[in-house]
Amino acid sequence: MLSLETMQRHVDALFPGFMGVRLVELAPERVLGELLVRPELCTAGEIMHGGPYMAFADTLGAIGTVINMPKGKRTTTTDSSTKFIGGAKVNTTVTGESVALHRGRTTMVWQTFIRTAEGKLCAVVTQTQLILD
Amino acid sequence: MLSLETMQRHVDALFPGFMGVRLVELAPERVLGELLVRPELCTAGEIMHGGPYMAFADTLGAIGTVINMPKGKRTTTTDSSTKFIGGAKVNTTVTGESVALHRGRTTMVWQTFIRTAEGKLCAVVTQTQLILD
Amino acid sequence: MLSLETMQRHVDALFPGFMGVRLVELAPERVLGELLVRPELCTAGEIMHGGPYMAFADTLGAIGTVINMPKGKRTTTTDSSTKFIGGAKVNTTVTGESVALHRGRTTMVWQTFIRTAEGKLCAVVTQTQLILD
Amino acid sequence: MLSLETMQRHVDALFPGFMGVRLVELAPERVLGELLVRPELCTAGEIMHGGPYMAFADTLGAIGTVINMPKGKRTTTTDSSTKFIGGAKVNTTVTGESVALHRGRTTMVWQTFIRTAEGKLCAVVTQTQLILD
Repeated sequence: MLSLETMQRHVDALFPGFMGVRLVELAPERVLGELLVRPELCTAGEIMHGGPYMAFADTLGAIGTVINMPKGKRTTTTDSSTKFIGGAKVNTTVTGESVALHRGRTTMVWQTFIRTAEGKLCAVVTQTQLILD
Repeated sequence: MLSLETMQRHVDALFPGFMGVRLVELAPERVLGELLVRPELCTAGEIMHGGPYMAFADTLGAIGTVINMPKGKRTTTTDSSTKFIGGAKVNTTVTGESVALHRGRTTMVWQTFIRTAEGKLCAVVTQTQLILD
Repeated sequence: MLSLETMQRHVDALFPGFMGVRLVELAPERVLGELLVRPELCTAGEIMHGGPYMAFADTLGAIGTVINMPKGKRTTTTDSSTKFIGGAKVNTTVTGESVALHRGRTTMVWQTFIRTAEGKLCAVVTQTQLILD
Repeated sequence: MLSLETMQRHVDALFPGFMGVRLVELAPERVLGELLVRPELCTAGEIMHGGPYMAFADTLGAIGTVINMPKGKRTTTTDSSTKFIGGAKVNTTVTGESVALHRGRTTMVWQTFIRTAEGKLCAVVTQTQLILD
């Protein structure tokens, strides 16, 4: 399995790095990350825009899939569904916990809970990852 | 109705501006925008990360709702569902076309088609907007 | 391509037949059906329960996939997302129009619009079909 | 709170009763039910059709909302998203466990896990319920 540091360097060069996603823990059934709600990630009202929630979750679920899939395979998200539940204020940090609901050979399903530092649920994202040759 | 320029200035100060969303047309039943696939918006393989697709669509659907709702109301996305269909290469421009499927007093449903410059479908995003006092 | 009659006989023996789904038109990019809102398909208030909407759409999108996929392949729905927009009254007939948004070798995406006889939109269902050997 | 028996009689007269949904436990944060996979609920291959999964979940999540909402209010599902993960064979019984992810005044979010008798996950359904006057 890739180390946390290697994976962090990998995402730093991509859109998650642009947003500021920090990986906290990688395990085959769970991936944890955190994201500072910088002003640039906000919408009106100084709360995080819906986009970063979905992008953060997409990142964690894809990493979870990469960790689990055989060498030489690729993955792509085919579907992502989000319920928005609560807001996250500017300059706070949200956590993302992505858990595997299904780890098959052809598809994996990951679900990510995004929460405030106090543990209040902000969004739930469920995504399907297709495994490709 | 807010002018295109006013709305563009509004989003420039928020996450859509950070990504580089440019509004192209605002009408009560349709909102058009475009987004340059800068390297910072990409994932591995030099194609746009799934996050910006979803964030771009969320922006357009929310704007469509704002255009249609009575003064003094607010809106929040309660749900967003995305099917990822094709990739968009770095340094190309994608277009987003968001159309109203439902414009009610309590909820609106907007659907956004993201396409390459050649018209190839990249993603379809369907979202529900709740109208609040 | 399978004839309408053959496909109708096929679904009659399955859950869609139990609900009363009638196929109206089969084409590679579009499948049409209709469904009588019998009392058994209703929820409180004498309007169609959410379940039959989703089941009706799932049926049409799967048929669209079967029509398009190479012989010897199978398909399964991996994901289905529904926005409920309006009610359909008991003893009326709703129509379902399922259109192909993507017809690839590995996945297809179909979107179904369910409408009242007067053309009022009741629900929009977007589903991903995985093509399997 | 309505008793299990009263609620069962209520659903027996509606589409869930037509499918054969049996309620097993009602609590403010969790609703349990079961469903016999009769041949009429199946698709090709003698496994449950996707429709009954979604209808079963929609039923449980709506009941969970009804239990929690103030008297005199109504609820409607605005959105339902399903990931299909595994099959359920004819003549077996599946269980549905619906848990509250969010119980607000305007919306509630319920998530339902459908599993085989052996505990294998068949589908996960996440739905938003709007609370109306």
